[in-house]
Amino acid sequence: MNKAERLEKLKNIMYAKSIAVIGASIKKGTVGNELIKRLIEFGYKGKIYPVNIKYDEIEGIPAYASVLDIKQNVDLAVIAVPSKVVLDVIKECHSANISGIVLISSGFKELNSEGLAMEKEISDFIKKNNMMLIGPNCLGILNTCPNLRLNACFAPVNPIAGKIGLATQSGALASGIINILPQIKLGLRQMISIGNQADVNILDIIEFWENDDNIEQILLYIESIPDNQKFREICERVNRIKPIIVIKSGRTETGTRAAASHTGALAGDDVLVEAMLSGAGVIREKYLRDMFETAQVFSHCVLPKNENLAILTNAGGPGVLATDTAGDFNIKMAELSEGTKSKLRKVLPPQAGVNNPLDVIASATREQYTNAAEILLDADEVGVLLVIYLYITTQNDVEIIQDLENLKKKYPDKPIISVFMTTADFPERLKKVVKDCTIPIFNFEIEAVHGLKKLLDRKHFLTEANMETPKFEVDKNLVKNILNDCKEKKVKQISTLPSLKIFDAYGIPLAKYAPANTFEEASKIAEKIGYPVVLKISSDTITHKTDVGGVVTNIKDEKELKTEWDALLNRMKEINQIEGLECVIVMKQIIGSGREFVAGIASREDSHLAMFGLGGVFLEVLKEVEFSSCPLSAYNAKKLVTQTKALKMMGNVRGYKSVSLSKMQEVLLRLSQMVSDFEEIKEIDVNPIMATKDGEMFAVDARIILK
Amino acid sequence: MNKAERLEKLKNIMYAKSIAVIGASIKKGTVGNELIKRLIEFGYKGKIYPVNIKYDEIEGIPAYASVLDIKQNVDLAVIAVPSKVVLDVIKECHSANISGIVLISSGFKELNSEGLAMEKEISDFIKKNNMMLIGPNCLGILNTCPNLRLNACFAPVNPIAGKIGLATQSGALASGIINILPQIKLGLRQMISIGNQADVNILDIIEFWENDDNIEQILLYIESIPDNQKFREICERVNRIKPIIVIKSGRTETGTRAAASHTGALAGDDVLVEAMLSGAGVIREKYLRDMFETAQVFSHCVLPKNENLAILTNAGGPGVLATDTAGDFNIKMAELSEGTKSKLRKVLPPQAGVNNPLDVIASATREQYTNAAEILLDADEVGVLLVIYLYITTQNDVEIIQDLENLKKKYPDKPIISVFMTTADFPERLKKVVKDCTIPIFNFEIEAVHGLKKLLDRKHFLTEANMETPKFEVDKNLVKNILNDCKEKKVKQISTLPSLKIFDAYGIPLAKYAPANTFEEASKIAEKIGYPVVLKISSDTITHKTDVGGVVTNIKDEKELKTEWDALLNRMKEINQIEGLECVIVMKQIIGSGREFVAGIASREDSHLAMFGLGGVFLEVLKEVEFSSCPLSAYNAKKLVTQTKALKMMGNVRGYKSVSLSKMQEVLLRLSQMVSDFEEIKEIDVNPIMATKDGEMFAVDARIILK
Repeated sequence: MNKAERLEKLKNIMYAKSIAVIGASIKKGTVGNELIKRLIEFGYKGKIYPVNIKYDEIEGIPAYASVLDIKQNVDLAVIAVPSKVVLDVIKECHSANISGIVLISSGFKELNSEGLAMEKEISDFIKKNNMMLIGPNCLGILNTCPNLRLNACFAPVNPIAGKIGLATQSGALASGIINILPQIKLGLRQMISIGNQADVNILDIIEFWENDDNIEQILLYIESIPDNQKFREICERVNRIKPIIVIKSGRTETGTRAAASHTGALAGDDVLVEAMLSGAGVIREKYLRDMFETAQVFSHCVLPKNENLAILTNAGGPGVLATDTAGDFNIKMAELSEGTKSKLRKVLPPQAGVNNPLDVIASATREQYTNAAEILLDADEVGVLLVIYLYITTQNDVEIIQDLENLKKKYPDKPIISVFMTTADFPERLKKVVKDCTIPIFNFEIEAVHGLKKLLDRKHFLTEANMETPKFEVDKNLVKNILNDCKEKKVKQISTLPSLKIFDAYGIPLAKYAPANTFEEASKIAEKIGYPVVLKISSDTITHKTDVGGVVTNIKDEKELKTEWDALLNRMKEINQIEGLECVIVMKQIIGSGREFVAGIASREDSHLAMFGLGGVFLEVLKEVEFSSCPLSAYNAKKLVTQTKALKMMGNVRGYKSVSLSKMQEVLLRLSQMVSDFEEIKEIDVNPIMATKDGEMFAVDARIILK
Repeated sequence: MNKAERLEKLKNIMYAKSIAVIGASIKKGTVGNELIKRLIEFGYKGKIYPVNIKYDEIEGIPAYASVLDIKQNVDLAVIAVPSKVVLDVIKECHSANISGIVLISSGFKELNSEGLAMEKEISDFIKKNNMMLIGPNCLGILNTCPNLRLNACFAPVNPIAGKIGLATQSGALASGIINILPQIKLGLRQMISIGNQADVNILDIIEFWENDDNIEQILLYIESIPDNQKFREICERVNRIKPIIVIKSGRTETGTRAAASHTGALAGDDVLVEAMLSGAGVIREKYLRDMFETAQVFSHCVLPKNENLAILTNAGGPGVLATDTAGDFNIKMAELSEGTKSKLRKVLPPQAGVNNPLDVIASATREQYTNAAEILLDADEVGVLLVIYLYITTQNDVEIIQDLENLKKKYPDKPIISVFMTTADFPERLKKVVKDCTIPIFNFEIEAVHGLKKLLDRKHFLTEANMETPKFEVDKNLVKNILNDCKEKKVKQISTLPSLKIFDAYGIPLAKYAPANTFEEASKIAEKIGYPVVLKISSDTITHKTDVGGVVTNIKDEKELKTEWDALLNRMKEINQIEGLECVIVMKQIIGSGREFVAGIASREDSHLAMFGLGGVFLEVLKEVEFSSCPLSAYNAKKLVTQTKALKMMGNVRGYKSVSLSKMQEVLLRLSQMVSDFEEIKEIDVNPIMATKDGEMFAVDARIILK
């Protein structure tokens, strides 16, 4: 099956017009019974065929002994029978011309090796016969589309409809989420519990939703990623069209172990996961709650043109708290213009200050509230409005939401988010008056501000992200020759001189250097590049130069050079390393400014990651290092350079000149190009890159490891 | 009034047996009406006297024209009349022998200077006449004590009873909180809206609750602190007896400005606030929601003896998520023993793995759940139990809580916390079966784990905190003489030599040094302490030595010393600084390991703060520096040294030897002792403290600023 055919088949499942439930049951509390009940209760507009040899009728619907007995066309078979008979049942489906399967049953890969073998047999059969299967070990699927209302999962609660596609790798969690979502008024469009992903996997689903206009945002709970490279590509593409919000668990060491024992799948290296997700601009949340807050805001808010936040409140304290919270997330508060202030003064009582946060005070009437909201929304300096309402004496919570809904229509470009601390019956009362509320309403300031932050992040990503990977002129042949040479010599770590040559070939800025074989040569080089100089050995047989005294720094004149040259060669003789000694490199000593950086390429699983951060002694200790997937886009190179505290260190520290950010980005892009050109390179360390007081930067050492 | 009298008077207000509401009204929606209604609705057990000249009866209770007409004893007058007549009303109260006042009215300090003047007059009158006043500009007070049921605030919702004392500086926020708390099942014992704190302030309230056994934890929302020193002392003392959880807003720059415009009070320097709170072990939360999560856990959980967490779940995904979350907070997962595992195997189906998180899988019965919970609680290796329940097919959420309540009685030393993702009607159903639920129930893993983290933090604080301030033998007289000398000379920044002498006198480890006046002296010193050496000037007239070339490092031999000595003196001559030159210090050049630290004393408002972190070039950029209030306790010195990434830098970096943590703590304690002994010292910088490869540490420069 090609991709288009797969997507079409998945569509037939998710929009099935007729469903056979195999293993349907009349016994309350069983999955087979719940599945039928849910289909009925949620008002499925298609045809339901319960299948169970034991019953004539289930929940009032005629039952069939086998799918082969159903004479009409069946789009989808939902199977909930013991694992041992699943394959036979699927074979029957095939005979009955049913190609779409949702396999609820568990007892496969997640249980033991026998289960794994059964799962393999099933997926082989599915592939061979051009069928498609979701599961096994899953909760089922959901599609709230009003003319379909397909609820083929056994979560006990019916969802409310929205525009979200939710896919989860934990079926039970899907159930918990479906229980919770109506309580926080978050609507789903589709839910797919992917289970063990024997056939359909998370990648299929993202691509399916990419092409389904009913889905406006994609929420994923995943524990493992089936194909890193493909996952990254798909996320990069789809996330530009509709936001993807991900929880990828197994972030911590104990969490990784827990995930492995849960699904039997390896959680994967979180550094790689993080690099892929952030590189694709995907929003990664740590906690379920955070994911839903973000989804709530994304469900109802446009991306603002201007990001400046105005806070309207009838209580000072929460206004201050929300302002603090905005500060935590680096969200800028709008500076109200004199014009705006004078308009506000006209509609507000004199006790209300006209600042931002705008405190209309506890006695504010509905009119004052709404007038103030409109003035703020109308102001050019305001891009986003956060409305805080506390029920204090007069309860007009519902009315204020009504007014905000109207204002939203009038000012469609400006997101409105709200925090309401009112009575418990507010949602009920609101529902009676505002049927489809489109203002996100939270209980606490942090929820609203966190969601808003993610909205602004997405705006930045979409407007700023240059996802192109620039190409630089480099001397590829030179590198090819060196690498061929290494292959012949079976070298794993390239020695210093050829490493430096490779850097030169790819335009990595290096301190001046040249190789010497005799003192006389060394002296000439030192004279040419200028003292002080450094001596460092280049040898195939020595991995750690410094450990054997193979590096001598701060040589001030010819006399010192002579002494150190002789001493160095003597040390090499003593440890019998003269043989392997290629040459001694004479390098210009860089007088640094204490500002040292590290750039490089790391390797995780099947992927190259570009790396940047604080170098030198601080590398291991401070771990101010970030990673991004290769090939690196211009946007991600920029992000990498500006993400850590290294950014501040590149600035004007102690009066030293700033280091060029774009030059540093270029180093990273050039390294990324190198590993794109030469897959056999596993890791590169450019550590340290020293910045001088003048803001110039020079790599002074190179480490290149081959696969 | 002394403290005991004040506390007694506050008690008379908070436990008032008779209340006059002055400004009571029959008009719905007015504060004067709400106050009466709330008192009645909440079932106040005392006597209510509405006072308003206009009415004979308010809400069915006979009204009085003036408090003077009330013949019975009145403990408390709650006043809600226009600000202009407040003073007269208070005078009447005084005549009527009512000494306790809760002043609801606003229009005072928070409004304008006229209001401020009125407030001043009122507080003067109160003080002069031995009265006590809460407010003005406040919501009122609450005491849910079952034989009192005093609700003298105008929040629209009645609270549920608990053991929490809540004080807030924002009256409107108090109302919002009271609306919300019943929805999250958090009970209050008392609430005091402190308003403008014209008389009773936050310090009185903390001390009052310190002595009220009905209060088990104290929640504060504050925007300003009336007396830093006293606040710190009280927090240190009271927090050891009952937990104090604080939101202090104005954390960020914009938040500080917002707070100032809200209450008219300065938010204060957040560095100082943070140092005071963390030094006292007070739990500071950033967000309201977090505060309530913590309060929820503290309301129902003992401090565990053993901190290892076991997670019991019927769904794999949430188990993994909770494990990740525990990892985020450095909470250790219990390693289940073989004994525990075999017990679990006996009660669980074979599909359930017996790991931690323990996934009893979706089909788990109530019995399996409860048996597993008991086995975990019974295991020595488990100290805390987190129970996650998702309603999947069989709904036994209420029953499981019932069982957990019983297990809690059986294992009273082990906290049980829970996450239930079930149907919206769960709280209603639960209430019918479990009247007073004592298991904290959250919707999301992060809420439970965050609350648990704070419980563990408190346990650490109470068990580890040595709040004593050790005393070291020092040469106080020497310092006294130097400071007297400086006073005479009117010096603000002590020059280098006397600064180094002060360090010596207080036992701060310094690189070897001695002062020289001639080259010959310098040469002798250098010979004695050994090359390489550093030269640095000591001068009263030069503040920044390095800026004028007053420091020369890395002098390797006598020849270099001569050259540099002459050059240094020439430079001083050129800028006419020979006159002010006290001497030139010859100091041993410390060959560092790149590990540089800063220790010192900073000064904020009226307080000294000890400071520690990464020094050198990284100080400004990385801001890995923390602060703690002086006088520093042994506990806080330890915390200071271990709080930042400087801790890792003190460890075995690049094979260099570790730096002694206790010696570093001693440096901080000695500095703290110095500013206790000499109040006139404003700031001290010991920057950098250099650590050698051998793990020894030496201060190489000193900066002492006087007030």
